[in-house]
Amino acid sequence: MLNIRRLSANAEGFREELDRLLAWETVSNGSVNDIVTEVVNNVRANGDAALLEYTAKFDRLTLKTGAELEIPKARLQEALERIPADQRDSLQLSADRVRAYHEKQIQNSWSYEEADGTMLGQQVTPLDSVGLYVPGGKAAYPSSVIMNAIPAKVAGVEKLIMVVPTPDGEVNDMVLAAAAICNVDAVFTLGGAQAVAALAYGTETVPAVDKIVGPGNIFVATAKRMVYGTVGIDMIAGPSEILVYCDGQTNPDWIAVDLFSQAEHDEDAQSILVTQDADFAEKVYESMNRLLPTMPRQEIIRKALDDRGAIIVVDNEEQAIEMINVIAPEHLELSVDDPKALLPKIRHAGAIFMGRYTAEAIGDYCAGPNHVLPTSRTARFSSPLGVYDFQKRSSLIMCSAEGANTLGKVAGILADGEGLQAHAMSARFRVTD
Amino acid sequence: MLNIRRLSANAEGFREELDRLLAWETVSNGSVNDIVTEVVNNVRANGDAALLEYTAKFDRLTLKTGAELEIPKARLQEALERIPADQRDSLQLSADRVRAYHEKQIQNSWSYEEADGTMLGQQVTPLDSVGLYVPGGKAAYPSSVIMNAIPAKVAGVEKLIMVVPTPDGEVNDMVLAAAAICNVDAVFTLGGAQAVAALAYGTETVPAVDKIVGPGNIFVATAKRMVYGTVGIDMIAGPSEILVYCDGQTNPDWIAVDLFSQAEHDEDAQSILVTQDADFAEKVYESMNRLLPTMPRQEIIRKALDDRGAIIVVDNEEQAIEMINVIAPEHLELSVDDPKALLPKIRHAGAIFMGRYTAEAIGDYCAGPNHVLPTSRTARFSSPLGVYDFQKRSSLIMCSAEGANTLGKVAGILADGEGLQAHAMSARFRVTD
Repeated sequence: MLNIRRLSANAEGFREELDRLLAWETVSNGSVNDIVTEVVNNVRANGDAALLEYTAKFDRLTLKTGAELEIPKARLQEALERIPADQRDSLQLSADRVRAYHEKQIQNSWSYEEADGTMLGQQVTPLDSVGLYVPGGKAAYPSSVIMNAIPAKVAGVEKLIMVVPTPDGEVNDMVLAAAAICNVDAVFTLGGAQAVAALAYGTETVPAVDKIVGPGNIFVATAKRMVYGTVGIDMIAGPSEILVYCDGQTNPDWIAVDLFSQAEHDEDAQSILVTQDADFAEKVYESMNRLLPTMPRQEIIRKALDDRGAIIVVDNEEQAIEMINVIAPEHLELSVDDPKALLPKIRHAGAIFMGRYTAEAIGDYCAGPNHVLPTSRTARFSSPLGVYDFQKRSSLIMCSAEGANTLGKVAGILADGEGLQAHAMSARFRVTD
Repeated sequence: MLNIRRLSANAEGFREELDRLLAWETVSNGSVNDIVTEVVNNVRANGDAALLEYTAKFDRLTLKTGAELEIPKARLQEALERIPADQRDSLQLSADRVRAYHEKQIQNSWSYEEADGTMLGQQVTPLDSVGLYVPGGKAAYPSSVIMNAIPAKVAGVEKLIMVVPTPDGEVNDMVLAAAAICNVDAVFTLGGAQAVAALAYGTETVPAVDKIVGPGNIFVATAKRMVYGTVGIDMIAGPSEILVYCDGQTNPDWIAVDLFSQAEHDEDAQSILVTQDADFAEKVYESMNRLLPTMPRQEIIRKALDDRGAIIVVDNEEQAIEMINVIAPEHLELSVDDPKALLPKIRHAGAIFMGRYTAEAIGDYCAGPNHVLPTSRTARFSSPLGVYDFQKRSSLIMCSAEGANTLGKVAGILADGEGLQAHAMSARFRVTD
């Protein structure tokens, strides 16, 4: 039997138990830091030579020249033609839908002119170049290529460089096919901290980029933190989470497997059911126990649910929503009759899956919105990956002579108040009356 | 005589010299880290008691209770009434203009429905609460209150908590007046790493917030890095920079003082003039030497210009623009006849000051756009502080039965391809044909 926590929101000590359940802090590990520092410094200093050394050491792939690190574009196209037709069609449909959704996120430049002729505005431009890290080997995820590459391309990024390790020569054709579909500009067989360092600083073969995105293990995450500032990075994700809120009227088997689908990611993943129907909670628990043995990844699912999962019974919808806003989940499933009515009350969630038909898994692959989402309660202050992460803004200010005359006086007074006299003088040079 | 670098873009070794000039890396300091770790942990564990202890120790301000840390709202209003009328009017005009500009940045929720009834969209919501750090003492900047507080309020943040230390009882009335004008919700006399820790974790008196913004010294910056993840933070800024591009037709005195206005911030600030007119470069150099002795902050200006400044003579406009895009300056002044014609070629800059009348100082105080801008070449991938930094997005997905049927099949195929069978099953439960 599953040993998942079964809690009542009204029980004494519930809030403390919830806090413990949600607590997640990445412990920084000194030895990981030391290794990554050495790798990053070596790649920065020695370029391709260091990349060849680490690729031989960590991926057991021996190459003679930097040029061999590149996976030719023809190879991507080959992969696309080689994979089964249903996979190819599904990848293509996913890419098309993700593109259509993300096109709505494009931000445009704007400006306006004031009465005295002064112009103010904002110029929006794409990043010049972006690096996309894709984990390699058997657990490679083509969906991750689509979710990271498409927003960058929709934003207008001209140089999108992908790195994916091929440990022991393990090449994932679906990943290469996804790169072909997304028009990635170049792919290098590189992984780990060395790949991140190459993208941040550039080598003879690998071009330096302006921002690095994509998931990776602790070495990749540590390297990304280290090069942040030299380049931009996306958020460093914690374990995946789902909160399913159900009014008790959805098939309990559906809900059980929705919870499994988060739990199967890894043993630290978190699945929480919130419902006001205690009998339904019991039924979902029964479904879980019955269906678990049919799951190939049952060991991971069991550990995740036992260690970090919960079934929480609340009094009513209001209490459920309070719970949602405290937990600020990465994925929120509203398995209820009228989910639209709840939206105005939901303050924090990465993505909201509405109604009984919207399995979270559909969002992972092909609904359209991004599957890179804020974890560990960071939905309180951050957003899904989007086109906006690959665009940047420059403020525009163009004073007319009259505008400079008016504003120069004001700036002068405030600059004097702050004791910055060169500021004041610079503004007052443009004051004419 | 000023010992500022005078370079020609065509000289041998120019690009290496430029790289050295632009290089800036914050060296992390072990002892600062140790102190900040101790302060943050102490505040997290002991709340108000720790705050009172550090405030007595670092700010030489002895208070008996946590409640005394709050500066009452009446005190803010008093400050607003006490400051000179021209300062009050200038602060008000600045706040009004900054508000008008930032209102154009508000992003709204959107959604669309597909043919089969599936709805996709994005819900945009303000952050619940934000902490604003304001440095204290004599070098306090009321403009910084306006630039950080107004975008948060325009975004709809309901709880905006300001912290400002009052070392040796030094209270800056203009700062408090700015807080009154910006409708800051509460102000605490707190500074340093202890203030950041209080905002991140909350104490009996200080509420925990979701994001912390605002400038500070190395202790504040280190504490912000440390609590990042628990709360959001804004960028950690490097030294301020300006690049003035002038065609040679602007009064050289104006350009000289524009360069001074960056340099007076601090000794690490960077001022660079780029021009195709070698005679003009010489005239600006003469102006600088003549005007420097009139500047109260001349020692800081001299050191900044000598250590990190440069006058660069280029061949033509094209080369100037290449220089701009390599340097990706925080502030870019285009002191030319037709700056609008250059905009499409400018790929990276925090803010662009266009034409001969637009002193950078006007943007610092009252033009409207934000003065919190990306430094150290990070304009390649980041943006001015804006309303978008205080809003966040949740993806919306609501499948119709028909949509779930179509998309469930696709998700199933892709999930199988990634070896995630619970994902596949969860999607296929909603497939009906």
